[in-house]
Amino acid sequence: MADPLTDDEERAWRTFIESSWALHTALEDDLRAKTGLSMNDYHVLVHLSEAPGHRLRMGELAAALWFSPSRVTYQINSMVKRGLVLKQPCPEDGRGQEAVLTDEGLAALETAAPLHLITVRDRFIDRLDPDELEVVHRVFEKVRKA
Amino acid sequence: MADPLTDDEERAWRTFIESSWALHTALEDDLRAKTGLSMNDYHVLVHLSEAPGHRLRMGELAAALWFSPSRVTYQINSMVKRGLVLKQPCPEDGRGQEAVLTDEGLAALETAAPLHLITVRDRFIDRLDPDELEVVHRVFEKVRKA
Repeated sequence: MADPLTDDEERAWRTFIESSWALHTALEDDLRAKTGLSMNDYHVLVHLSEAPGHRLRMGELAAALWFSPSRVTYQINSMVKRGLVLKQPCPEDGRGQEAVLTDEGLAALETAAPLHLITVRDRFIDRLDPDELEVVHRVFEKVRKA
Repeated sequence: MADPLTDDEERAWRTFIESSWALHTALEDDLRAKTGLSMNDYHVLVHLSEAPGHRLRMGELAAALWFSPSRVTYQINSMVKRGLVLKQPCPEDGRGQEAVLTDEGLAALETAAPLHLITVRDRFIDRLDPDELEVVHRVFEKVRKA
């Protein structure tokens, strides 16, 4: 049995979970309306665009995005259907598969990035001072560690 | 055109968005596996259980959860089908509708709450010190303001 949350913990937790969920929903709705991409699509495109040769093994992508293997497979299959990425066998290791950014995927990212940036600044970054941003970074590094 | 993110902003934003998304996914997967409820189900049950008479107008529920009207309607209809809530006309105002917690909904919440608490402590609350929790509360209050 875990200890009940104290009043301060309860207040912080509720505010965080409801506000961050609303933020995710707003970012997702906004991105979809402007570009047709989901937030998951967007983050996959960002990671691939930054990788050498615009390609990552499925396991590397799952680790980068903190996705389960089944979630990353589902996500990439959906993006393959839309022409945003290709799946190819790994050059060094015939058993594994890589996701490879297509020209269409890169173009979609380049169109979406400045539009998404406006929302990210407006709804999050520009509301925080530098000290708060530093704490947010530290807190979510700790939260990310499995 | 919004200014590009500085390196510090980019680092904090990426860590926050990927880590909080992974946290939401983990909480959702965990809650569903243990109880069959989604996080949205859970938060609706919490808000109704705290309301006088265990009932809230649809608009009040939307505001409490930062849901759009269409999202709250979809969510409540899904919970009505599963017997967790009822929809009833508002007593004062025949046009509006209220969501009302059922005994089954309350029982589902009472079973889920201690299980969910373990995950919330383990993945978030117990990783933060009191100062960090205070900043998290302040930051997400600011983010929540539309």
